[in-house]
Amino acid sequence: MFDAYGTLFDVFSVTSLCEDLFPGHGKPLANLWRKKQLEYSWLRSLMSRYRGFWGVTEDALVYSAKSLNLEITASERAQLMDSYLHLATFPDVKPGLEELEKVGMHLAILSNGEPEMLRAAVENADLSNFFTDAIFSVDSVKEFKPSPRVYDQLSSGLKINKREIGFVSANNWDVIGASSAGFTTFWIQRSGFETPEELGYPPTHVVNAITDLRRFISLE
Amino acid sequence: MFDAYGTLFDVFSVTSLCEDLFPGHGKPLANLWRKKQLEYSWLRSLMSRYRGFWGVTEDALVYSAKSLNLEITASERAQLMDSYLHLATFPDVKPGLEELEKVGMHLAILSNGEPEMLRAAVENADLSNFFTDAIFSVDSVKEFKPSPRVYDQLSSGLKINKREIGFVSANNWDVIGASSAGFTTFWIQRSGFETPEELGYPPTHVVNAITDLRRFISLE
Repeated sequence: MFDAYGTLFDVFSVTSLCEDLFPGHGKPLANLWRKKQLEYSWLRSLMSRYRGFWGVTEDALVYSAKSLNLEITASERAQLMDSYLHLATFPDVKPGLEELEKVGMHLAILSNGEPEMLRAAVENADLSNFFTDAIFSVDSVKEFKPSPRVYDQLSSGLKINKREIGFVSANNWDVIGASSAGFTTFWIQRSGFETPEELGYPPTHVVNAITDLRRFISLE
Repeated sequence: MFDAYGTLFDVFSVTSLCEDLFPGHGKPLANLWRKKQLEYSWLRSLMSRYRGFWGVTEDALVYSAKSLNLEITASERAQLMDSYLHLATFPDVKPGLEELEKVGMHLAILSNGEPEMLRAAVENADLSNFFTDAIFSVDSVKEFKPSPRVYDQLSSGLKINKREIGFVSANNWDVIGASSAGFTTFWIQRSGFETPEELGYPPTHVVNAITDLRRFISLE
């Protein structure tokens, strides 16, 4: 069970378009955009004021541009939002998923993204074959990760014991949420050592890439 | 009804001690510490894994020091935590509260902080006279702001209609939470213009200081 944004898809692949549109401001804009996107998802869940992830992502973009004093036209906004449907995958994603599929693992996605937004990103990245009928969104729960209801509903819907679900994310807080909810978890640290969050509920395993997951599967 | 940390108390008054203990790293440490303190309060609420604000603040300090590669001894940690009980107040706090008291307003605090932690900070800042018997903590709800339960329980406990409570905070997300919960709200922007968060539920009023509040009170 894979997280999507930041785990399969590199959310910072929007940076180059940010830089093209706002020369000299690409990196700060992309960074603030992602930071606010997460903050807004947490704050809206806490306030019981759910809004779909597409809207939250657009709100975060609007705030970030304003905060950096960048005047953004409707067409630039549309272009940047569209880039969220065409995110690059990390280099270990396809080879890693192929290895897991070869040994018979059932692969799925559990994401904050709304179903349409997710489906588009999966298709455009040519990952559809890996995740047929197994793209799950928090949108049915109307709360974002790391609410336990998100992880709970998934396992009860699938009728799979939580311990038997291997949840994979590069977002430490997401892995912690899944651990706290009872999943077996894998934290991907692609860039080497990252300081673990001090939130309790540590990941079951820490790996460097999706291609490291195959070795956890015994094949008797 | 006042928020405490960031509104009455300047949480960045810890910066000079951070700088004394870790020369050249005071500001990044103080900034990351505050950022993580808030993040952890939101994430723990979302995960239904409440921990008191003192513990959350200490967790955030531990993470921040590790993340900045600063080796922090137990005694330095204790010193830094103790500084949270001796925060400076902003210059407009005492004059502003005095004006409001003079016209007969009932003043109170609603804070993420645990009761003991809050009481110590209020006493050490010499604010006790303003808030006799009126220091309320989220600790009774076991969820942090901006959960609606925090604001709701307060107004029902006090038997005051939510619209009649004037909630004051310099933290935009906190003001938004209180607006969303139905309070009349005042957002303090001490440093001039701040970009408003794109979360809906805007503040009822925006002011620059606590000394600006008196003029909202009609005295017939």
